[in-house]
Amino acid sequence: MAENLSTFISSKTKTVEISREKPTVIIGERINPTGRKKLLSSLKEGNYDVVRSDAKSQVEAGAAILDVNAGVPGADEEPILKDMIHALSEVTDAPLCIDTADVIALETALSIYEGKALINSVNGEEEKLESILPLVKEYDAAVIALCMDDEGIPPTPQDRFEVAANIIERAGKLGIEPADIVVDPLALTMGSDHNAGRIAIETIELVVAEFGVNVTMGASNISFGMPDRAFINSTFIAMSILAGLTCPITNPLEEEVNIAIQAADLVMGRDDFGMNWIKNYRDRQKNS
Amino acid sequence: MAENLSTFISSKTKTVEISREKPTVIIGERINPTGRKKLLSSLKEGNYDVVRSDAKSQVEAGAAILDVNAGVPGADEEPILKDMIHALSEVTDAPLCIDTADVIALETALSIYEGKALINSVNGEEEKLESILPLVKEYDAAVIALCMDDEGIPPTPQDRFEVAANIIERAGKLGIEPADIVVDPLALTMGSDHNAGRIAIETIELVVAEFGVNVTMGASNISFGMPDRAFINSTFIAMSILAGLTCPITNPLEEEVNIAIQAADLVMGRDDFGMNWIKNYRDRQKNS
Repeated sequence: MAENLSTFISSKTKTVEISREKPTVIIGERINPTGRKKLLSSLKEGNYDVVRSDAKSQVEAGAAILDVNAGVPGADEEPILKDMIHALSEVTDAPLCIDTADVIALETALSIYEGKALINSVNGEEEKLESILPLVKEYDAAVIALCMDDEGIPPTPQDRFEVAANIIERAGKLGIEPADIVVDPLALTMGSDHNAGRIAIETIELVVAEFGVNVTMGASNISFGMPDRAFINSTFIAMSILAGLTCPITNPLEEEVNIAIQAADLVMGRDDFGMNWIKNYRDRQKNS
Repeated sequence: MAENLSTFISSKTKTVEISREKPTVIIGERINPTGRKKLLSSLKEGNYDVVRSDAKSQVEAGAAILDVNAGVPGADEEPILKDMIHALSEVTDAPLCIDTADVIALETALSIYEGKALINSVNGEEEKLESILPLVKEYDAAVIALCMDDEGIPPTPQDRFEVAANIIERAGKLGIEPADIVVDPLALTMGSDHNAGRIAIETIELVVAEFGVNVTMGASNISFGMPDRAFINSTFIAMSILAGLTCPITNPLEEEVNIAIQAADLVMGRDDFGMNWIKNYRDRQKNS
C-alpha cells in the first residue's frame, strides 16, 4: 500500500487539505449552467448573482471547494469564466475547481486566480496531456485526471488504472508531484452496465493501493434511469469513501448524499467523538 | 487474496448459499426475547404464535435465515428452544441460526433440527472451543466465530484477526472446513470508541483476504447513543458489504437498513440488470 498523499488547494486566504486521514472534502458541483436554466440565463445576461448565491448556499451546506464551469452554449467561455471567478472571490474564500474544456479560458482563469486551483480536468488523450499538464506545472495547480484516453473509457478496473498510471507518469516528467493529481475513476450508469459501480470502486482501490493519490468522482450518474436514486447514490458514495474516495463532486444541497458522506466519515473514524455528526444533526433539526 | 468460500445452511427442504459472489443473505434477528416484551411473555406462557408470526414477517421482508434465541430469564432454555424450532418448522422453510449460550440446549436443538444449522456462536475462549466445536463437527453444522477470547475483545483489527485465525485452526483440527466458519468481527459502539466502525471493517478486510470465509455482524450497536441511528447503520452496513460482510444479522423490518443492503448489492454488481432493486422498489410503492 502506498502512503496516503495530501493535496492542498487554496484561495487567496484559505487552504483546503484533501487527505484520506481527514474528513471527506466536498467539491460543490452547482456552479455549472448545464441543465440549470436559471444560472444559464443569468450568465447570458452577464449577471453573476446566481453564481454568488450558489457559492454561498453550497459552502453553508458543507462544500469546501467550488467547481466553476462557464459552459454557455454558443458563447465564448473565456470572459464568462473570468467574470465568474471575480464574482466568486467577492463572496467566498472557498478554493476553486476550474472546470473547462477550453484551454484558452483555462489559462486565463489560472492567470487571474489567486491561489492554488484544482483543474477539471486532464485525461489520457495525447492532446489533453500535451495541452493541460504544462499549465498545471506553470501555475502550480493540481489537476483531476479522468481514467479515459484516446481509446475511450476502458471497461476494466485494471485498464482504467493503467490510464491513471500513465497520466501520473507523464505529469512526473514535467515535475508535477502525484500529490497534485486527483484521480477520477469515472462512475458510469448502472442502467447500461450493472457492474458500473463495482468497476469504479475497484479502480479506486487499485489507484489508491499503488499511488496513495486523492480520488474524486461524480456519484450521481451511477443511478441514472433507476428508481429511488438518492438511496443508490448515498450507498455508492459511502462505499467509495471506504475504497478511497476523498473529494467527491456533488451537490451538497442534496441532503441524503451529504448525510451519507458524514456517516461514512464517522464510520471511518475521521470524526472525533462524533462531534461533526452531532453538530450536523442539530443543524438539520434546526432547519427542519 | 484467498478464494471466496460458500457456506451452505439448510432446512429440511431449502438450502441457502452464503457467498461473496451472491446477494447478501439477511439473518433475521427478531426471534429473540431480549428486549421484546410481547415475545417474552408469550414464550413464558408456552405460546409460540409470536414466534410463528415473527418468522413469517421476517421472511416476507427478505430474511433468508432466521436466528432463534430462547433466552427467557430464569427459565430452562432447552425445552423452549426445542418448541420454538418445532413451531418454526410449521411455518417456514427458512434455515435456522441456533442462538444460545447453553450447550445442553444447543445439543438438543441440533439433534432435532432437520438440516444444516448455523450455530450462534463460538469464540476463542478455550472453554467455548472445547464445548462448541465438537458439536459443529458431530452435527455437520456451520458456526459463527466471534472475534474475542479469554482476554476479552481485542482492540486492534490485527488481534481480532488472530482470534479468528485461531478458531479456524482449531476447527480445522477437528475436520471442520473454513467454509463452515462464519466470522463476526464484532461491531462495538462508536459512542465509546469513535474508531469502532473502522476497526470492525478492517477486521473483515483482514479475515477475508486471508481465509475467504463468510462474515456476519450485528450492525446496529455501532450507532448506540448517537442521533439519526438509521443513517449510521445503513452507511456502516453498506461499507461493511464492500469490505466483505456477506450475512448480517439484522431486523429486515427496518426499511432503511434493508434498502442499504439492496443498494450495496446493486453497487457490487450482484443484482443483474438491477432487477431485484426495481422489484423491491415496486413492493415498497405497493406497501406505502
